[in-house]
Amino acid sequence: MSNLNQKSSNVVWHQATVNRKRREEKNQHKSVVLWFTGLSGSGKSTLAHAVEEQLFQLGLNTFVLDGDNVRHGLNKDLGFSIQDRKENIRRISEAAKLILEAGIITLTAFISPFKEERALARTLMPHGDFIEIHCYCPLEICEQRDIKGLYKRARNGEIKDFTGISSPYEAPVNPELKLDTQKLSLEQSVDKVISLLKARHIFTPTQKLLK
Amino acid sequence: MSNLNQKSSNVVWHQATVNRKRREEKNQHKSVVLWFTGLSGSGKSTLAHAVEEQLFQLGLNTFVLDGDNVRHGLNKDLGFSIQDRKENIRRISEAAKLILEAGIITLTAFISPFKEERALARTLMPHGDFIEIHCYCPLEICEQRDIKGLYKRARNGEIKDFTGISSPYEAPVNPELKLDTQKLSLEQSVDKVISLLKARHIFTPTQKLLK
Repeated sequence: MSNLNQKSSNVVWHQATVNRKRREEKNQHKSVVLWFTGLSGSGKSTLAHAVEEQLFQLGLNTFVLDGDNVRHGLNKDLGFSIQDRKENIRRISEAAKLILEAGIITLTAFISPFKEERALARTLMPHGDFIEIHCYCPLEICEQRDIKGLYKRARNGEIKDFTGISSPYEAPVNPELKLDTQKLSLEQSVDKVISLLKARHIFTPTQKLLK
Repeated sequence: MSNLNQKSSNVVWHQATVNRKRREEKNQHKSVVLWFTGLSGSGKSTLAHAVEEQLFQLGLNTFVLDGDNVRHGLNKDLGFSIQDRKENIRRISEAAKLILEAGIITLTAFISPFKEERALARTLMPHGDFIEIHCYCPLEICEQRDIKGLYKRARNGEIKDFTGISSPYEAPVNPELKLDTQKLSLEQSVDKVISLLKARHIFTPTQKLLK
């Protein structure tokens, strides 16, 4: 063997040297998972994106996982049976965990109706890194809004196992934050999430808005 | 309804306003997927982590997907049948796509032996965002190294469908980069990857090393 071989021949498996801690130091903020849960139409996705916009303008690294980028990609092989919905949430949790590890504030916006699956998501993350945010809104209001026309289709029997209609929504008992999206303005809801992140020292309150 | 209701009642679904382009501008570098492929023991993971270390020190945002963080998490339900190995690569591709969208230089280090699955990964990404890097090393050398003892177990029949022994490795025909990891030192291989990224304007050649 030539000299050139020396290094690569001695190659051994090694742990990642760039880890979450180093990324957080570089980014100057911590990463965390913000798990938005609530009925269809309760404002989860709107709120998650509005929070992201605010955090991004503060210079933080963020990413939203929602139906738009997950259902047509990572989870496109899954249907809506109980089993598939559980697998849906499990994969989302694992993807969120990877993005968390990448040093990014990860926001997830899925109905995630079952306590058990949200508990699984929580246990997957390092302690304290899972922040459950319940977007509370009475079913009647969500159904009245019916932004995507899904409630109508569910009432017509076109959609099976639709949360709130033909499948239960198990409300969080002790979420880190409960937001009444009927009573609060979007701005007020965003403020409450941002305040929680400050209180948890995810970023410093002196962080300046980007240009 | 009170005035407070006004905003949230008008809530409508909206597209993410923080997108990849805005993230890339903030990060001051582009995101891309570096897909390392090669036999077990060819140096994929070592090289991916060494490239990441270099990029991180240049101040870039990076993440490595490899067996360590995928097989025990997102893909822990998958075995090693042909079907499961395809699904393994499909999910890795989709996860890499999400992390790419998050503005991060995403490095994947998996054997990924089949042309078809690498072609799928490529087509999933926006054009030009998939960089295939073939870590070439003769089977005899990989088997000689046998860092994890897997070749021995495969030869003993303890591992079925082991790439190179009882399952084919379909070498890339036209990868963006082919590195002979037997002949090149780790440092030389890293340099070649970094040069390619500079040539593709993923980051500016004047980017300074962090302290």
